[in-house]
Amino acid sequence: MNKTYALINQQLVPYQDAMMHISDLSVQRGYGIFDFFKTIGGKPLFLDDHLDRFCHSAQRMHLDPGCSTHELRAMLEVLMVKNNLPDSGIRITLTGGYSTDGYTISKPNLLITQQALQLERTVQEGGIRLITYEHQRQLPDVKTIDYLMAVWLQPAIKSHGADDVLYHSNGLVTECPRSNFFMVTKKGEVVTGASNVLKGVTRKQLLQLASHEFETVERDFTLDELMQASEAFVSSTTKLVLPVTEINGIRIGNGSCGPITRRMHELFSELSYGGK
Amino acid sequence: MNKTYALINQQLVPYQDAMMHISDLSVQRGYGIFDFFKTIGGKPLFLDDHLDRFCHSAQRMHLDPGCSTHELRAMLEVLMVKNNLPDSGIRITLTGGYSTDGYTISKPNLLITQQALQLERTVQEGGIRLITYEHQRQLPDVKTIDYLMAVWLQPAIKSHGADDVLYHSNGLVTECPRSNFFMVTKKGEVVTGASNVLKGVTRKQLLQLASHEFETVERDFTLDELMQASEAFVSSTTKLVLPVTEINGIRIGNGSCGPITRRMHELFSELSYGGK
Repeated sequence: MNKTYALINQQLVPYQDAMMHISDLSVQRGYGIFDFFKTIGGKPLFLDDHLDRFCHSAQRMHLDPGCSTHELRAMLEVLMVKNNLPDSGIRITLTGGYSTDGYTISKPNLLITQQALQLERTVQEGGIRLITYEHQRQLPDVKTIDYLMAVWLQPAIKSHGADDVLYHSNGLVTECPRSNFFMVTKKGEVVTGASNVLKGVTRKQLLQLASHEFETVERDFTLDELMQASEAFVSSTTKLVLPVTEINGIRIGNGSCGPITRRMHELFSELSYGGK
Repeated sequence: MNKTYALINQQLVPYQDAMMHISDLSVQRGYGIFDFFKTIGGKPLFLDDHLDRFCHSAQRMHLDPGCSTHELRAMLEVLMVKNNLPDSGIRITLTGGYSTDGYTISKPNLLITQQALQLERTVQEGGIRLITYEHQRQLPDVKTIDYLMAVWLQPAIKSHGADDVLYHSNGLVTECPRSNFFMVTKKGEVVTGASNVLKGVTRKQLLQLASHEFETVERDFTLDELMQASEAFVSSTTKLVLPVTEINGIRIGNGSCGPITRRMHELFSELSYGGK
């Protein structure tokens, strides 16, 4: 049972009482955006990046958060003090609001929730297995709540004995539903897709970290090129750097976590957790 | 103020108290389906068709309604008696449920709401203006709650002085966000798209009605072919048959409601409202 508090339109409420009327446009039309970040030892991680993206998503979706970034930071502080969960995940959701005609954007509802998180500090050597699926996320630069295909594909992923799905569109590899995707070429280049992907905060940090040690490039690439890669990994706020060892039942590289993936995990863990 | 009652998981509640916890997968991941039908003089219209499609949508989305169609009919009866709104619209929504991990389908929430509806019995001679937009709805045979593009496009529609948007994909005309699309060719054929569209209940009735008087065909067609049409109209439960007189600022036919569109409206009104 989640005993935390949540903020619903700036009101602190016990999480179990965090209710919305069903006329909200998220329920009626799947319309909303969110962002998600971690706190470690009570400190939000990459908060500026997450708030920047939240504001970008809101603006792109014609949703007015109803508060300044400064006020949003103050709300987050109130929630963090109230919940006192040093290691946690915080989700900020902004919906289309209570629409009288069930279609037109109204005053958005702002929902902030926090939950305890276990930190993963060691790389998962075994890695994960992906299947591929042709799909392009709508408004890919926006962190919308649209995970229709991702949720819908869960039984297919399970039936293939895989862990997640990798989207591709027009022949180009894009992203996983909740993480960005990287490959390491046989030449040792670290490559991640440039077009039609969500610009992940972990992705941004990894590109910066990688550029000091490896040839690093944002560019589009095909599934064929990917299948020749020597390593692959996904990145996200919760997954950090997670090796991908199999795609559609075919091994990537030697089928275990590669040295560059391991180094990326190490670099990112240092940046995130520091001396902790 | 909506003074009706709603059914939330088989519980009658005043509409203003129809709340859901924010952990529902519609709020978290935009995951859910619905259907919508009218009652006229207290009688549901084409209820079998709507319930068939609702069950199809639920099954395709791995959502268990938690009740038989028979039980669903009984619930609808309870709601209709309670609300006593002879002319109304009833929406049945089924969401992904309260997900503990915010991602995995849980026990779905079943939401049934009813609102008074004004019946439109005369054809809107002036018709509506559309703009076109390249987009393919996800799982087009399923009536999902995903109207992200439709809601997102509203400011663009307004700024073009239009009333709605017509989707096309891979060069083929598909549908509007909340209605099916028909054209009448210069030869007098009544044509509606066959692939990647929601199979509307009004669309189905219109195809049957039209086939008695006109050459009637379900087939895909291009935007170029559409621009040569002599008439066009959209169909839906709320819009019935609504003439389309302009697409991207270009007149269709002579720019007013054509004779076949008017006849389709007449036939469908007779079928829906009978001698009322």
